[in-house]
Amino acid sequence: MQAGKPVLYSYFRSSCSWRVRIALALKGIDYEIVPINLIKDGGQQFSEEFQTLNPMKQVPILKIDGITIGQSLAIMEYLEETRPTPRLLPQDPKKKAIVRMISDLIASGIQPIQNLSVLKQVGQENQMPWAQRAITSGFNALEQILQSTAGKYCVGDEVSMADVCLVPQVANAERFKVDLSPYPTISHINKALLALEAFQVSHPCRQPDTPAELRAQLPNHSPLVQGRERGSHAGLAEQAQKRVSCSRGLELDLFPQEVAETLGSPWHSFEAPSIRVFSREMKLVGYISPSTSSFLNPLICHMLGLSVGRHMTCYNG
Amino acid sequence: MQAGKPVLYSYFRSSCSWRVRIALALKGIDYEIVPINLIKDGGQQFSEEFQTLNPMKQVPILKIDGITIGQSLAIMEYLEETRPTPRLLPQDPKKKAIVRMISDLIASGIQPIQNLSVLKQVGQENQMPWAQRAITSGFNALEQILQSTAGKYCVGDEVSMADVCLVPQVANAERFKVDLSPYPTISHINKALLALEAFQVSHPCRQPDTPAELRAQLPNHSPLVQGRERGSHAGLAEQAQKRVSCSRGLELDLFPQEVAETLGSPWHSFEAPSIRVFSREMKLVGYISPSTSSFLNPLICHMLGLSVGRHMTCYNG
Repeated sequence: MQAGKPVLYSYFRSSCSWRVRIALALKGIDYEIVPINLIKDGGQQFSEEFQTLNPMKQVPILKIDGITIGQSLAIMEYLEETRPTPRLLPQDPKKKAIVRMISDLIASGIQPIQNLSVLKQVGQENQMPWAQRAITSGFNALEQILQSTAGKYCVGDEVSMADVCLVPQVANAERFKVDLSPYPTISHINKALLALEAFQVSHPCRQPDTPAELRAQLPNHSPLVQGRERGSHAGLAEQAQKRVSCSRGLELDLFPQEVAETLGSPWHSFEAPSIRVFSREMKLVGYISPSTSSFLNPLICHMLGLSVGRHMTCYNG
Repeated sequence: MQAGKPVLYSYFRSSCSWRVRIALALKGIDYEIVPINLIKDGGQQFSEEFQTLNPMKQVPILKIDGITIGQSLAIMEYLEETRPTPRLLPQDPKKKAIVRMISDLIASGIQPIQNLSVLKQVGQENQMPWAQRAITSGFNALEQILQSTAGKYCVGDEVSMADVCLVPQVANAERFKVDLSPYPTISHINKALLALEAFQVSHPCRQPDTPAELRAQLPNHSPLVQGRERGSHAGLAEQAQKRVSCSRGLELDLFPQEVAETLGSPWHSFEAPSIRVFSREMKLVGYISPSTSSFLNPLICHMLGLSVGRHMTCYNG
């Protein structure tokens, strides 16, 4: 391991780890990842070695500048203090307070109540409704707050710590099949953020410890590779539930979730069906997901004969 | 309500409200309290009026400088930005990161899992073990961390945001009858902090909404009032389990919890027995508590014939 390079102890699916990965990416900080598998071997966070790093037995942990910091918000505040550009917090103290309030609402008011260690305690059959209740209750408040604070992102038009907290929490909501239709502001901001590179490269489906079956395409696929992918998956075309041509010169294949896994669609991990998008030249443009959460792009849904919702999430592979 | 004066929506027993009250007291900020009773009328935080203030339906909420801020840590960070003296965060970024890490460990890692709304969901009979598990698990980590960061207080010898979070969490631990004997560092720091005025005036037993039966003596009792109290409680002396004279000219009465309520001992609310302390002139000096948590002052315990532990918590009435 190169001396001086920050080391992040991370789990691909941990939403708190994802927060820090986003922050590091936004600030352009080069770092190494040490994966800590929260499931395998009964949970590697319980190993003696990891506990000396973090007695809380949680990821993320960041080793940086000779110190070891736990707690994702504390890590982000430290990055902000020592690597202030680009800013994760607005300069105006009042706006800053709102950003921190939203961040804490998620980091203290939602995530801890639906995290792995708590869910283990409520029993298998209660996990889904428990997590849904925690997220719904928090999102009810968050939606209302964001309606008065949001511009393009959570607070105005600049990406902030609040956004860094939002996206991983929405991913958790999707994993726990929360109906997101009552939260148009949250969903809209989430979509805008997922289009940004820092949120893509840090995504759970693209980490060194992402299992192969959940791994998405890397973003920098050359046209050649895309062509090969198209070729190697050619046989899958028959498995598509629908194939439609779109007015913008795109061709769409809708795959059920089981096939989406084989495709390597990033949406597989969210247990969503996937739509494969090809350009007119039959180059793989990426995947889009009508998602589990009833956010369906009216146009595409109409074409695919799906029920119509508000919008859909787009992933450019 | 005086224009320009900050207004805190608070519940006397809410540990997050207490955090903000401590911070305001430390910084010497004058403010008004609007009590929000989390129990009465099914919970006043659910009223329409309060929900427009805070859609999260939680206290504390601080109205200040024309904005409304929720989330206790966001509030404290705002106070720190706008009223920097005395500091709640060290100037050194690394020390600051440690203070924030400890604060977040409590504010995200412990408190949310044992708060009122979660406890309501786990069912009456599970509440105590559930809360104990959350606190014990967090305190196991915290004790280990504090052993390397603490001086007189959580991080070195200056009171910080970490301390502001610690004391209310220890009070919760006592309420949920967590055995604190494995946490000598936590207990020691807690004791040192409870001796400070800002932690005393903000204490749950001294708030405008503290029920009369849980109310402690105010700190500025004149000797005359103390004399009257002594007089009016004179009949209680017979109910004391033990009466001893102490080498420093103090006289101690140990009362069981039921009598402590009548006395107005601040320790009643923690379901602890109380020791009434009189000076040589028979003026009421205050109350001390051998506490529920086995931290017993060896000297006093020896005198009272109680089992001996590490130390006791002192409350100067």
